[in-house]
Amino acid sequence: MAALIGLDWGTSSLRAALIDHDGTILDRHASPHGITNLPDGGFEAAFAKAVGGWRAPGLPVVASGMVGARTGWKEAAYVACPGGAGEIAQALLAVPTGDGSEMRILPGMSFRNEAGVPDVMRGEETQILGCLSPDRQDGLFVLPGTHSKWVRVEAGRITGFASYMTGELFAALRGHTILRHTMTPPGEAEEFDADAFASGVRRAADLTGGGLLRRLFGARALALFGELPTPAGASWLSGLLIGTEFVEAADEFGQVPGSLVLVGGATLADRYARAARILEIATDAADPDAAFAGQLHVARLAGLIPETRR
Amino acid sequence: MAALIGLDWGTSSLRAALIDHDGTILDRHASPHGITNLPDGGFEAAFAKAVGGWRAPGLPVVASGMVGARTGWKEAAYVACPGGAGEIAQALLAVPTGDGSEMRILPGMSFRNEAGVPDVMRGEETQILGCLSPDRQDGLFVLPGTHSKWVRVEAGRITGFASYMTGELFAALRGHTILRHTMTPPGEAEEFDADAFASGVRRAADLTGGGLLRRLFGARALALFGELPTPAGASWLSGLLIGTEFVEAADEFGQVPGSLVLVGGATLADRYARAARILEIATDAADPDAAFAGQLHVARLAGLIPETRR
Repeated sequence: MAALIGLDWGTSSLRAALIDHDGTILDRHASPHGITNLPDGGFEAAFAKAVGGWRAPGLPVVASGMVGARTGWKEAAYVACPGGAGEIAQALLAVPTGDGSEMRILPGMSFRNEAGVPDVMRGEETQILGCLSPDRQDGLFVLPGTHSKWVRVEAGRITGFASYMTGELFAALRGHTILRHTMTPPGEAEEFDADAFASGVRRAADLTGGGLLRRLFGARALALFGELPTPAGASWLSGLLIGTEFVEAADEFGQVPGSLVLVGGATLADRYARAARILEIATDAADPDAAFAGQLHVARLAGLIPETRR
Repeated sequence: MAALIGLDWGTSSLRAALIDHDGTILDRHASPHGITNLPDGGFEAAFAKAVGGWRAPGLPVVASGMVGARTGWKEAAYVACPGGAGEIAQALLAVPTGDGSEMRILPGMSFRNEAGVPDVMRGEETQILGCLSPDRQDGLFVLPGTHSKWVRVEAGRITGFASYMTGELFAALRGHTILRHTMTPPGEAEEFDADAFASGVRRAADLTGGGLLRRLFGARALALFGELPTPAGASWLSGLLIGTEFVEAADEFGQVPGSLVLVGGATLADRYARAARILEIATDAADPDAAFAGQLHVARLAGLIPETRR
């Protein structure tokens, strides 16, 4: 019997699930209606389309992700680190829905490291919570993407995290700099080149080869010298940037305790797992439905799910 | 009396000078007809427009810069480091001009550092040569720009250099990533914010604050927290990237011997001088006509200028 409706509502996509008391996904919905790509009728229309058929009296609805950003449906606060499911459950933001009911948006999280660099996330904290279990209360988690996140968990609470502009920088470099001449144009079919990717990762990890600004121009020079064929260029750049992210994160978080947990979509997670192997770091893959598991945990702590139904 | 016609022919602009035997510029011409922005008639038309009025029997013409690239008028070779005016003078490439005469293109230079990162430049080597004198045979030179160059000179020869994608990365980040929301849109009037620039430089130099991928997202977080007002965003990012270039170059070239010599246009050179002051590095400004001085030196070594005229 359904316990919860959960929405994982990001910038460019919307995933929704009808979730059972034990976490089983009873039904699911996916659309490209992220907060920057809403249909006519806006948030309410996207919401109704995603979950309208599942609504039932007393069945709670929660959402996490960019839907709670300033540019989302309604701005939810940030919970400061260190924090966990308890703090998040206490900071839910109710939003009235067009059908006379309401949805609760989970807050994001904020962090400021020792050097004073501030950071924020929305949605990733919920995925992390869904990865935790009585046996896994500590670890370092990576959520690859446009703005990759590395998140440290200690005793079941998120104690720090860092964002890296890896994915977005790749797209900007590929589309709008001289490096576009060193690779297959965006949109054209392209094969992933594992050797070029590995070479990029190793270049990033070789600390004698200069920093990122230097290495980026190095791709151009390699191509001019015929040492980086065009079909391999994008894979090399992907390796360089992901490798650089690993180097920066090692500096921030130190040695990985046990295995690094990779959370996220298959293609990107595969690249991060490759980079980790090259750098001799062990990895585990997380449940792709971790966001919904995290939402169920938070909803329960918030008292949204009647105990009598368990 | 004129000794030489020199063309400093880059990607986006063309500067030409009628040069006296003592290096005095007798006349000059400037146009936006860089190699990616040629008029109808292509290279020959741009050439004729720039220097046609100065041509005289026996008056040699030389050009340096991207005009010798694969995508230029004719591809000139690269001289490998270490090399100086002598090697460059021996590698001039003659190109017939439409008026039945010829122009000589100076070669670029190439370098591969100890880690195997290859690098190239075209035009900057000529500017450097123009900065040298009997009293200045050693030094570290910086040529800020789309692809900034740091060049080491020892005993009058260029012994190594490194390129940094600073300027082009700034433009790509500003125009095509989420960071555009943290700053005044491109094209809109914008005041340089010296405090924000200094803050960006200091962030780059604070090695505890993570690497560049991290710090870039940090700009977004600062803006979300109201700590980086929109009018200051571009200045902060400029400071962060230029500061990162200084940090990377310090890693590559070690401590600056004496003063760093800044070569190039006033606006960018001013920003680099500011960054250097914040980082407590002394700087000297180079002659903005260094390219023409370098061309005169090379032309003389190549025997293009009759000794009897001196």
